[in-house]
Amino acid sequence: MGKKNNVTFNDIAKYTNFSKTTISRYFNNPDSLTLENQKIISDALVKLNYKENKVARILANGKTEFIGIIIPNFYHHYYSEMLNQILSTYETFGYKFLVFVGNENEETERRYIQELMAYKIEGLIVLSHTLSSSELADLQIPIVTIEREDEHVCSVNTDNYMGGVQATCLLAKRNCDILIHINSPTSPDLPAYGRIQGFQDTCKEQQLNHRIIYRELESQHEQVKSQLENVLKEVDSNYQGMKKGIFISNDTHANVLLNLLVRKYGTLPDDYLIVGFDNSPISTEAIIPISTVGQQIDKLAFEAVSLLVEQMNERKKRKPKPLKEPIHKVITPVLFHRDTT
Amino acid sequence: MGKKNNVTFNDIAKYTNFSKTTISRYFNNPDSLTLENQKIISDALVKLNYKENKVARILANGKTEFIGIIIPNFYHHYYSEMLNQILSTYETFGYKFLVFVGNENEETERRYIQELMAYKIEGLIVLSHTLSSSELADLQIPIVTIEREDEHVCSVNTDNYMGGVQATCLLAKRNCDILIHINSPTSPDLPAYGRIQGFQDTCKEQQLNHRIIYRELESQHEQVKSQLENVLKEVDSNYQGMKKGIFISNDTHANVLLNLLVRKYGTLPDDYLIVGFDNSPISTEAIIPISTVGQQIDKLAFEAVSLLVEQMNERKKRKPKPLKEPIHKVITPVLFHRDTT
Repeated sequence: MGKKNNVTFNDIAKYTNFSKTTISRYFNNPDSLTLENQKIISDALVKLNYKENKVARILANGKTEFIGIIIPNFYHHYYSEMLNQILSTYETFGYKFLVFVGNENEETERRYIQELMAYKIEGLIVLSHTLSSSELADLQIPIVTIEREDEHVCSVNTDNYMGGVQATCLLAKRNCDILIHINSPTSPDLPAYGRIQGFQDTCKEQQLNHRIIYRELESQHEQVKSQLENVLKEVDSNYQGMKKGIFISNDTHANVLLNLLVRKYGTLPDDYLIVGFDNSPISTEAIIPISTVGQQIDKLAFEAVSLLVEQMNERKKRKPKPLKEPIHKVITPVLFHRDTT
Repeated sequence: MGKKNNVTFNDIAKYTNFSKTTISRYFNNPDSLTLENQKIISDALVKLNYKENKVARILANGKTEFIGIIIPNFYHHYYSEMLNQILSTYETFGYKFLVFVGNENEETERRYIQELMAYKIEGLIVLSHTLSSSELADLQIPIVTIEREDEHVCSVNTDNYMGGVQATCLLAKRNCDILIHINSPTSPDLPAYGRIQGFQDTCKEQQLNHRIIYRELESQHEQVKSQLENVLKEVDSNYQGMKKGIFISNDTHANVLLNLLVRKYGTLPDDYLIVGFDNSPISTEAIIPISTVGQQIDKLAFEAVSLLVEQMNERKKRKPKPLKEPIHKVITPVLFHRDTT
């Protein structure tokens, strides 16, 4: 990796008899040269065995083409699939991604963001819930969040309210005697709160017998299992002989609930209907395929990067017009009707 | 982001009355300055509100601190957890990760690698199986692969053979009448082939009645399910009344098999024992917790980055000694004994 073989703009200029400025324009703004001259230079690059050095280009034009990503964890399939879809936008936009896992620690995430800033990222995508949107907005770079508190920054979220409505209407159509929503206590600031609101509003509008059960479900599998075991006991005894429609926070939890029922009864009893959320692989791979409200992760990811690219492009203009208000985009979820309803 | 607020080395030199060379040494080799002078400069940076620009430093010292990662997909939890553990080594080594998802397309992966090379990555971690290790070795940069063909490059792998032995011994101890291994056809070049070899050797040594069933399982859930449904029919009729010990390629497949059995019999029948591989979340979240051979993903990831860092550090020496032979490290798997055995 010595410097002997490094071909410089100078070398290319000498070889082609163009000025260094022309060579620089070839890399940064090729359309400003004629096709003929572009060809001469590209042939020279092959002859001289020129290796592109994007780091050098960055210094020349200030564009790193880096986007930072902070994701909270890889425990939920939702996050790994979102990362997958974000990374795949490279094919469309050409941005490269520097990825950090925050693990819900404020100080750690601040350090990560400082590191990303030092690498001159052009924009930041935040999926973790750790830092407030006002703190993020203070970074003064283009930011898009996905499914988290987003008052002061741009965001892309699933229409969680619509998802709640879809799940509730499906259970209502199946003539359940009681509709139950099980969820973790959720702040109204979070997009996911819409699932609860959508459930509640639909039940009230349609005058359906309903109940919301809050339990701390953001924990390890064993704890979730024992929480839901208790919920099930309660539901079993309170609503005996009634047809119970359960809409639960996500597919991981829906699967735990389903397994508890099947272990108890050998199969899913007729008086239990279940709808999850996310359309995770577990919803199809469960012992009985689970009905679910699917987030369109590919669309969420693409819209998030698009929204970021718009902001980043605006900044590169001679007279950039910063956004007056953050933009919040919303993606409609899709109901998957499977064997648990 | 205009240039007005950019504090340069010149500004720092003027403010502190040091030369620009001294300022540069502060950033690239701080120990060459006295503690007192380091303090004067660091105070000046605060006063001048200097924002670190690592991109500029890279050009000065040639070290990008970037490691490229190519992962094949995010479908298997194994890959997302591996990425998680690799990213977390930032806390130990300080390297930043540029991540690409290969999706098993040769041309795509070559393009990604070219892009990573243009960004002057110092090393590359490859989890995808697409490009041969001889092609990777030709890149002439430090490389470590994980769980794939690795003849010409350094690698870290699970001791798959030991895993096969562990699974087989567990089933043998349970006095099964027939031991069955179900797997996709696997090339002997791949570390995962060790699972098959370990099963076979153990059965032969202990003179156990055994059989290996090959089916194409590297596909979508529905196909895997129908493949395993057929296998189960065959096993059911061929080994009726016998105690069957099944060791299967991974936990995702073990879960499909388990669900087929529970749906058929209402529970896991006494004459079926199952051992999976990976210790994925699905193995604990399945309807009956599945016994499995756990890969120590945290150790695999840490050793992979360590092995890469060693090679990268060697390159930075004045007289680097390249490795004569690739180093292959092996991590012992851990048996998890749960309710399916």
